[in-house]
Amino acid sequence: MPGLITFLSDFGRQDTYVGVIKGVIAQINPQLRVIDLVHEIPAQNLAQGSFHLGTAYPHFPVGTVHLAVVDPGVGSDRRGIAIQTETGFLVGPDNGLFSSVLDQLPDQGMANIRAVELTQTRYWYTPSPSSSFHGRDIFAPVAAHLASGVALADLGSEIAPQSLVRLPIPSYHTTPTGVIGTIQSSDRFGNLITNIPAHCLLGQSWQIKIGLWQLPLLKTYSDGPVGAMIGLIGSHGWLEIAVNGGNAEQVLGQHPGNPVEVISLCP
Amino acid sequence: MPGLITFLSDFGRQDTYVGVIKGVIAQINPQLRVIDLVHEIPAQNLAQGSFHLGTAYPHFPVGTVHLAVVDPGVGSDRRGIAIQTETGFLVGPDNGLFSSVLDQLPDQGMANIRAVELTQTRYWYTPSPSSSFHGRDIFAPVAAHLASGVALADLGSEIAPQSLVRLPIPSYHTTPTGVIGTIQSSDRFGNLITNIPAHCLLGQSWQIKIGLWQLPLLKTYSDGPVGAMIGLIGSHGWLEIAVNGGNAEQVLGQHPGNPVEVISLCP
Amino acid sequence: MPGLITFLSDFGRQDTYVGVIKGVIAQINPQLRVIDLVHEIPAQNLAQGSFHLGTAYPHFPVGTVHLAVVDPGVGSDRRGIAIQTETGFLVGPDNGLFSSVLDQLPDQGMANIRAVELTQTRYWYTPSPSSSFHGRDIFAPVAAHLASGVALADLGSEIAPQSLVRLPIPSYHTTPTGVIGTIQSSDRFGNLITNIPAHCLLGQSWQIKIGLWQLPLLKTYSDGPVGAMIGLIGSHGWLEIAVNGGNAEQVLGQHPGNPVEVISLCP
Repeated sequence: MPGLITFLSDFGRQDTYVGVIKGVIAQINPQLRVIDLVHEIPAQNLAQGSFHLGTAYPHFPVGTVHLAVVDPGVGSDRRGIAIQTETGFLVGPDNGLFSSVLDQLPDQGMANIRAVELTQTRYWYTPSPSSSFHGRDIFAPVAAHLASGVALADLGSEIAPQSLVRLPIPSYHTTPTGVIGTIQSSDRFGNLITNIPAHCLLGQSWQIKIGLWQLPLLKTYSDGPVGAMIGLIGSHGWLEIAVNGGNAEQVLGQHPGNPVEVISLCP
Repeated sequence: MPGLITFLSDFGRQDTYVGVIKGVIAQINPQLRVIDLVHEIPAQNLAQGSFHLGTAYPHFPVGTVHLAVVDPGVGSDRRGIAIQTETGFLVGPDNGLFSSVLDQLPDQGMANIRAVELTQTRYWYTPSPSSSFHGRDIFAPVAAHLASGVALADLGSEIAPQSLVRLPIPSYHTTPTGVIGTIQSSDRFGNLITNIPAHCLLGQSWQIKIGLWQLPLLKTYSDGPVGAMIGLIGSHGWLEIAVNGGNAEQVLGQHPGNPVEVISLCP
Repeated sequence: MPGLITFLSDFGRQDTYVGVIKGVIAQINPQLRVIDLVHEIPAQNLAQGSFHLGTAYPHFPVGTVHLAVVDPGVGSDRRGIAIQTETGFLVGPDNGLFSSVLDQLPDQGMANIRAVELTQTRYWYTPSPSSSFHGRDIFAPVAAHLASGVALADLGSEIAPQSLVRLPIPSYHTTPTGVIGTIQSSDRFGNLITNIPAHCLLGQSWQIKIGLWQLPLLKTYSDGPVGAMIGLIGSHGWLEIAVNGGNAEQVLGQHPGNPVEVISLCP
């Protein structure tokens, strides 16, 4: 069975960076398969990179290698790392990009994972990597070798999971009357994805406060009339704000980073 | 021979929806191959989704499974369907998205096809699908199972071809002096693709009227000088309006939905 | 081992042109693999197409077939060609699109290559190709046959390497005090990629003049403070102008085609 690599970056599609990385992988093992996750992460935006990798991670086969390159510190002394979890591998810079994946693992990824700093140049594209494109010169070839069966321990020196850089991702918290959270991301349709998980919103009637708006919590987009602002449990498993047939981000003027409050109607 | 799936949607490329669907397919059968048709269909625009699927459909091998997800009614009671034609399979929502494919089949797709409503949850990603992402939870896994050899009849209960939702796609009609049609779509180059087929424009000299403009019908872009507005038979087999070396949509100020008239110069 | 095809074009991603071409390839040989290089080349921009193909070419396995379609003269009498180099194959229009690849070959591609004009219609998608989409009707099927083992000589009549169209690509030149070159391209991050190669900038201290700005030559982005304008040797092996954490194209107001001068500080 050929190995599977997913690939997420902020390289965009207007240059050949993504294609070149696939060429490097094909040179190492032409049988490997690469699935693009997303390459339109805003340039150098680690929070959005981490968010998207975290949402995609659970939907791939066990053993998949996840290559992720959003790397504002390329060429500095930030570490390059590979991580083995119970369900897959992560390869990229040690700058917090893997926070959302690690957060969803047992014990928040502090146990049952192994991590190495990438120091074994024999698995690199070149022993003298470019100072500005470690995606091509280090991370892609390491991912290709991992997907081809090279053991994690061969890639470099083991490091403690506790030492991995983690992003200060905002978390939700409960209040006497409900939950306060944050918009994590918006999608192409303008849906606003919060960080309030579905299990916080069971068994009662809820009202959603966002900006100046108060919205009901419904089952799906079409439960409201066209144009209605609503909340629903989205496909990621979090509270999502939407406009039926419209663009909530534009209509509500709300964006990632803004707060969202959910209030129980039957306290 | 591994099965082939094409994939068209309005998910765009800035999120991981497309990548996640490929992860779900890889979980079911890692040997399957997925070819992206287009994911930049304007959000929820069934007419453009149908147009693009129709133009791509004839160019794939017999037996290809075409997964298409433009789904404004997701979570409502609109049906999920799979269709077997004489040359391939279609999987997606029953909302008219397959109209342009069905229209090009013998008998406009009313005979020689079989269709089922997707009710067999054993072929879904989860028996409790998200209310907002049937692409991931129902359509992608069904497409993967079809491409892996599961029979259409196993996926659900058979439904009549006549019951499938069809879009009211505008058709061309002949006049005493020629043909009147509609711009179906525009492409990245600004070429305006009409719905007037090549066989209507044989054997005479024609003049094209669009907006305030009158254009000649030529063989190819470079038959006119640079900057010239022309008509030609495009690669889809329809009359196309173009500007040699320029962008007809911008130069002529004409857009999909607008009328086009072709007048015989030798009536 | 299945053959590998790379694919570069100006088709964009909003239409099905790219997907259709992959369907045509799959019809000829479903085992072939296609890697997208880039499809967002500005419409009909041969210089940018040539630049990007040239930067990607060295990073693919020996024997890879590179399909490239930026084709403003489609339907005219410009030739369709296939070229065999010592390391791979090139297929597309004879309009200069392959200039940057040929320029990096031994003897600037004037020796050790073989070229044919594509005249053998048996290897086309149809013997009566569309006048506006030779990518689908001629180049993609020819690339698929090459990647499947058809010999170059079978595709058409041999032509002299000296007869291939070459773009007048601006070159750098040395001055009494340094080097004058040109910005070749900019990337998604706003980095400005010049045509001054790394080997011109060895062993001395250099100052970079671009527009009204004077910048130092450093090792990597983060060698300057955030917001600093710097030069560095980029991953392509040329002088690159960057802003640490910012967008040099916007900040400096400089664009492809503009001149760049490098002055030795110790003449």
